[in-house]
Amino acid sequence: MSSNGKERDKQREQNQTSSPPGDSVLEKPLSRRDMLRLAGTGGAGLLLGAAGVGGIMGAFNRAATATVETATASKAADTIEFYGEHQAGIVTPAPDFLLFAAFDLTVSSKEEVRKLFQAWTKASAALAKGQLLGDSNDRLNLPPSDTGEAAGLSPSRTTITFGVGATFFDARFGLSAQRPAALVDMPAFGGDELQEQWTGGDIGVQVNADDMQVAFHAIRSLARIARGKAVLRWTQEGFQRTGKADPAGATPRNLMGFKDGTGNPDAKNTAKMNDIVWVQQGDGEPWMAGGTYMVARRIRIRVEVWDRSTLGDQEATFGRHRDSGAPLGGSKEFEAVDLKKNGENGKPLIPVNSHMALARGDGSIEILRRGYSYSSGMDHRTGQLDAGLMFVCFNRDPRKQFIPMQQKLGQSDRLNEYIVHTGSAMFACFPGVQPGGYIGETLF
Amino acid sequence: MSSNGKERDKQREQNQTSSPPGDSVLEKPLSRRDMLRLAGTGGAGLLLGAAGVGGIMGAFNRAATATVETATASKAADTIEFYGEHQAGIVTPAPDFLLFAAFDLTVSSKEEVRKLFQAWTKASAALAKGQLLGDSNDRLNLPPSDTGEAAGLSPSRTTITFGVGATFFDARFGLSAQRPAALVDMPAFGGDELQEQWTGGDIGVQVNADDMQVAFHAIRSLARIARGKAVLRWTQEGFQRTGKADPAGATPRNLMGFKDGTGNPDAKNTAKMNDIVWVQQGDGEPWMAGGTYMVARRIRIRVEVWDRSTLGDQEATFGRHRDSGAPLGGSKEFEAVDLKKNGENGKPLIPVNSHMALARGDGSIEILRRGYSYSSGMDHRTGQLDAGLMFVCFNRDPRKQFIPMQQKLGQSDRLNEYIVHTGSAMFACFPGVQPGGYIGETLF
Repeated sequence: MSSNGKERDKQREQNQTSSPPGDSVLEKPLSRRDMLRLAGTGGAGLLLGAAGVGGIMGAFNRAATATVETATASKAADTIEFYGEHQAGIVTPAPDFLLFAAFDLTVSSKEEVRKLFQAWTKASAALAKGQLLGDSNDRLNLPPSDTGEAAGLSPSRTTITFGVGATFFDARFGLSAQRPAALVDMPAFGGDELQEQWTGGDIGVQVNADDMQVAFHAIRSLARIARGKAVLRWTQEGFQRTGKADPAGATPRNLMGFKDGTGNPDAKNTAKMNDIVWVQQGDGEPWMAGGTYMVARRIRIRVEVWDRSTLGDQEATFGRHRDSGAPLGGSKEFEAVDLKKNGENGKPLIPVNSHMALARGDGSIEILRRGYSYSSGMDHRTGQLDAGLMFVCFNRDPRKQFIPMQQKLGQSDRLNEYIVHTGSAMFACFPGVQPGGYIGETLF
Repeated sequence: MSSNGKERDKQREQNQTSSPPGDSVLEKPLSRRDMLRLAGTGGAGLLLGAAGVGGIMGAFNRAATATVETATASKAADTIEFYGEHQAGIVTPAPDFLLFAAFDLTVSSKEEVRKLFQAWTKASAALAKGQLLGDSNDRLNLPPSDTGEAAGLSPSRTTITFGVGATFFDARFGLSAQRPAALVDMPAFGGDELQEQWTGGDIGVQVNADDMQVAFHAIRSLARIARGKAVLRWTQEGFQRTGKADPAGATPRNLMGFKDGTGNPDAKNTAKMNDIVWVQQGDGEPWMAGGTYMVARRIRIRVEVWDRSTLGDQEATFGRHRDSGAPLGGSKEFEAVDLKKNGENGKPLIPVNSHMALARGDGSIEILRRGYSYSSGMDHRTGQLDAGLMFVCFNRDPRKQFIPMQQKLGQSDRLNEYIVHTGSAMFACFPGVQPGGYIGETLF
């Protein structure tokens, strides 16, 4: 890291320093809705006289056990378990919102990193359950251990997915020898106009939730816990619409108006996921078995240019019909794709340089995509909307999957006229964690 | 406007030029879900052979009349009517998302502005109904008149609220004499650190919807229609959680963890709204009767500083308990506030410099607030999260309501230690529009 970079990090660290929730975030589990329910019944008020001014939240804590069970059933559908064989947020259902964050570590010892990962693990498991963090939410003379903005909100299917970037394996932590061969430095691709403010990072954290406020609370809480150990490097919000808003459960459309994700493999197909997503024993570094590689690309759409192109151009660019999502010449979204089928003019119905034709290729390379649209105000240099796709994908070996696929797309994709890649990062995602364990345990 | 500003606008205009949906956006009303339903039944495919490649969307149009009626019932709950005595988006329910946009006009004649407002009116009425815009969504040799990303999505309670700023009444359009006296130039307030990129604008447009993708589609469509007539000046996204995500229907919390909006007047109270929101006959400019003044303030929260302050400080800052939202010393969120009540130490239970005490004052000044939290990545100069409150409020006369209230807050509010106002704008919102009319009709 350059000395400039170090100074910036030091400055950031000072800025981000704030009272942490402490290491014991699970000591007094209390769901956010339990808290709300008690408030609604006036329980706080009744107990106020006895408990004194400092005891309002304490009253919640004492009364909480009585209500936890009644809340269980309604919460189950909104909860995705944090612990398991694999990390959540990869093959689990994709909630409506994304908040992606990259962190840079400011500590120099492996032991300090381990402690951070242990604290993050406990907090993440609590956040996934919709619990308030920490045990100092009721003391007037202390900063609250939970920042409170998600109080009363459901777990919202929160998932938090952790990975480490190539820079994590530089000389600082003595882990260079454990760097997986598959975690290569990302090559330059055609169409890249990467900006540092959305690129790289020692650690990547993907937060998904059905409520933006809940996702924000998660990232903010992780940043607080990291005080003095890591600083935020970049963040990016995203949104999508899935079955919840659309009763028909249709494939969501991207901001170019086309259905996006039709060709995505079925995340419920375990054999397929073992083949294309999960690192297997014998793939290389043993600590990565059960993990995966997460690629994040911030892809801006040249909205105004796209909107000037004809429907014919747009459909030839994607290789699909805009309305139905069917392959060109077809009628149904999910019908088999035949790239060799020619039209009446003797040329392929699906142009060879269309996005679909290039991304599919001969069908031998697959990745698992999890894309979110983003709208981030305007680019004030050009007056254009800064909107596009926050592309996240998972693959077992980026050297054989994402990278060759993107190299082909970067060279020839018709879509390149309408998009620009402004951010890029790759992270090795740890295998899943069991209760009592912590993220990165297999590495440390 | 400075010559630099003009050059910037010219550049922006070139960038934003794109094929417009045309003036006849309502010629073939077709709901976005009708389109989806037809796609689901394979209707497009069945008709493809007869209609030819260019006729896929045409098939939708022809078949649409048969399905519009069946969709009516399910859509009604998701629809807020655009036309009416007052503009929607003011006293109507607040959907989950906000996309606020300010535009600068690039034309020089009143007639061109009128045409823009007429086209925007038609489009807005269609967007509120969840219809596709325009009639060229089926022609391969033309850009689609609707950008398509909201196809299949519900109307999502979309509201679009228009107003004009002080600069609208400069020499360009010959309307200086009609500038309302109440539309003053906003004074500087304590705590202001305004940045040009979120300040001012000839026209302000507030879009609200329960789906961020639908809100984005609306602003993008309005910007397309404005090509050659107006350019985007700034935009800001926002989110909140209301009854939908929280079955208990609790007051949403802001990103400081406190309930926000408890003291907001009841928008269903017509007499109250006539008193504090709607401009009445005799208030000044006759063309504003039935309209209101919309103030937009982008208020960044110094998240990291706030998170270091104690619960006691935080509660004294707002004047309310964090958990219940009750006034300090009280137990219920909506109980009556008594600013004169003293604690055991003889001092007011609610500090005189707390946000609530100053904002309420003697209770004689009220405004109607509509606040949305925002999370807009990071401020890369400081490494801090760029998050806060996109504050929107409506009042009948800002000289007597918002401005004196904010002057008092800017001087003394305890909250000022933790927030900074980075953007500001005020717009005179036209009265409501009847079918066949257009926004601004009373002014032109």
